[in-house]
Amino acid sequence: MSPKPLTTSPLAPAQTPALPALDGVRLGAAACGLRYKGRTDLLLAEFAPGTAVAGLFTRSLTASAAVDWCRAALPGASARALVVNSGNANAFTGRAGIASVRATAEAAARLAGCRPDQVFIASTGVIGEPLDHGRIVANLPALHAGLDDAAWNDAARAIMTTDTFPKAATRAARIGDRTVTINGIAKGSGMIAPDLATMLAFVATDAALPAPVMQSLLKRAVENSFNAITVDSDCSTSDTVLMFATGQVAPQPPVAAAGDGRLRDFRRALDSLLLDLAHQVVRDGEGATKFVTITVSGAASKRAARRIAMAIANSPLVKTAIAGEDANWGRVVMAVGKAGERADRDRLSISIGDTLVAENGMVRAGYDEAPVNRHMRGQSIEIRVDVGVGRGRATVWTCDLTHGYIDINGSYRS
Amino acid sequence: MSPKPLTTSPLAPAQTPALPALDGVRLGAAACGLRYKGRTDLLLAEFAPGTAVAGLFTRSLTASAAVDWCRAALPGASARALVVNSGNANAFTGRAGIASVRATAEAAARLAGCRPDQVFIASTGVIGEPLDHGRIVANLPALHAGLDDAAWNDAARAIMTTDTFPKAATRAARIGDRTVTINGIAKGSGMIAPDLATMLAFVATDAALPAPVMQSLLKRAVENSFNAITVDSDCSTSDTVLMFATGQVAPQPPVAAAGDGRLRDFRRALDSLLLDLAHQVVRDGEGATKFVTITVSGAASKRAARRIAMAIANSPLVKTAIAGEDANWGRVVMAVGKAGERADRDRLSISIGDTLVAENGMVRAGYDEAPVNRHMRGQSIEIRVDVGVGRGRATVWTCDLTHGYIDINGSYRS
Repeated sequence: MSPKPLTTSPLAPAQTPALPALDGVRLGAAACGLRYKGRTDLLLAEFAPGTAVAGLFTRSLTASAAVDWCRAALPGASARALVVNSGNANAFTGRAGIASVRATAEAAARLAGCRPDQVFIASTGVIGEPLDHGRIVANLPALHAGLDDAAWNDAARAIMTTDTFPKAATRAARIGDRTVTINGIAKGSGMIAPDLATMLAFVATDAALPAPVMQSLLKRAVENSFNAITVDSDCSTSDTVLMFATGQVAPQPPVAAAGDGRLRDFRRALDSLLLDLAHQVVRDGEGATKFVTITVSGAASKRAARRIAMAIANSPLVKTAIAGEDANWGRVVMAVGKAGERADRDRLSISIGDTLVAENGMVRAGYDEAPVNRHMRGQSIEIRVDVGVGRGRATVWTCDLTHGYIDINGSYRS
Repeated sequence: MSPKPLTTSPLAPAQTPALPALDGVRLGAAACGLRYKGRTDLLLAEFAPGTAVAGLFTRSLTASAAVDWCRAALPGASARALVVNSGNANAFTGRAGIASVRATAEAAARLAGCRPDQVFIASTGVIGEPLDHGRIVANLPALHAGLDDAAWNDAARAIMTTDTFPKAATRAARIGDRTVTINGIAKGSGMIAPDLATMLAFVATDAALPAPVMQSLLKRAVENSFNAITVDSDCSTSDTVLMFATGQVAPQPPVAAAGDGRLRDFRRALDSLLLDLAHQVVRDGEGATKFVTITVSGAASKRAARRIAMAIANSPLVKTAIAGEDANWGRVVMAVGKAGERADRDRLSISIGDTLVAENGMVRAGYDEAPVNRHMRGQSIEIRVDVGVGRGRATVWTCDLTHGYIDINGSYRS
């Protein structure tokens, strides 16, 4: 099957940022024909010796073979290569899937002159079909010979599946008296669509950072970005975030702990970059026409606020109301109620855009509907809810649920 | 607003069963014009003195005023009347909502010659708008004067909102040497659509049963029926199941405990009646074109099996695939993975209809796709998953996710 071409999301950024070269990373993309015709579907990145790596993976209990591989390789490892294919997720493929990952890692390791467990792997695409890794292995030598440090945007394109635009972001940051660069690319247009999608993000920096420090920074940044977005509440077998630090720019004295005060600007830049990529994933949500920001305050804890916000963001009734440009705060109340976290029904307040529509558990008599209706007709929707029991606060991002989602996911497979 | 008339669900039963009269229950319906024009929207039922009552309610933490009222009235209470209105949920209406419930209960109590706390109340419809209980109170005297024991089907119609057909069921059962009747009516077409819907069920029997015995029987029956269905994962502020036992048919010696062996047939009949009503709710799921049965076996416990089955049933990706008649077992694997319960990826098996499509964690090479495709084109879809870790087993029911759901829930409010 050749998937039908998708129209670019109306929420896509005006242009893809051009990512600068980053010392210690060379990349390239190739077309193996794993599933798609006439486009690239294989990414190879090679890292300088001594590159540190951190990673976070899907919580799915039916994780893919590639996720298992990365998890096993990660603790304390250094990374020399990354191989990502699109078109086939190599998930639910049993022993054959494990063999495919191993063969791919061994082939890349020979080219990079490293051990197989220094090669990181990700796959995204159809579930349950054997991955023809022979095509990958056959394409790697030419790909390796042509690697260069300017191919970041080619890399962002090669990992796309149902994505309608490539996702990339870059930031500069100071660590002490040195300036470092952070580049990131991502893909994903549902939290998952197992036929063709999943969420992957790859971040690299030229800074010298020990792996445990980077793992700590990455975990916090993902918590407030990729873990704070939802398209359809579904969660992939393959979700992967990997971060590489090539060590080409080394602050003196070396950074040794995540609490090092010199990391403040780097942390800010990393948080901002991951949030940027996560927002791009939401903006490419399947069928999305609205970008929705939901902030919950007054909850018993930050965790409770997040759960309530996610209950709102994942409610099909809230999402269809937003698609219909209907300021249906009754459905927001319902979603608060089902979240299972403490909320004071009689102190609940809800704002849509800049307008307070409900307070003290009741609709605000005579509130001005005109600005609310105007806000609902826009592309960016903001909903703020205070549940009146504490100081916990969280923001999550989602998109609306439209006929487009049904079209993309309910079409016949050939 | 007058909601647009909805086409009857393609999954509706061929006809509504005619419910027989039941000793100790008289009913009637009236049109108050709370929201709908030209149809009934108020149900009054009066019960014989000595009627016992049991009930189960939404777990929502933003429950409606009527739910609060019933919860407070329930322990140990006897019931003399039930008042249900459709068109307005009286939820998120603050002190005014509490006053509405009290005024309605007092008016019905005067007519029935009982205490207000012997009157049970339920409301379903739009959230956040004050309930004009004056219309209800004004209609009750004439309604009370015309009560009769044959109006069960009128009652089933009066509680409808976005329902496209009335939901009713009846069963006979033996308790010792006596034959008793159980009648039930229900409404609901999403687990909730806060504008217009919620799930309500009212069951009555002429049997003499102590309230604690009935509560125990009801709890078990609801667990395997209404708690095992999902339309859209959303949960109402008003979900209510009430059961009344009028005591007109009294087995000798009286039933004193839920474990009484003479209750076996009654329990079977009650379970069957509630499952029938619950299936009718699924068959009226907003936009539904397929009735879907999902059975999970081999889980660590019954509870784990239920959670995995619900993760599959609530997955938008699984539901859109079913709408598209796509036997997409990859999405089922994904949903198993996100349920958060133990599953052995490499022992997982999946059947669709009568065909085993995957086993030992892999697609079954060369399985016959013809019967699977035929099954997916039918109205009743069966998915069975074995997760290979234990003996826990559960079945849940749901419907597909279609453009119809978006149409119903994403339309502009006037």
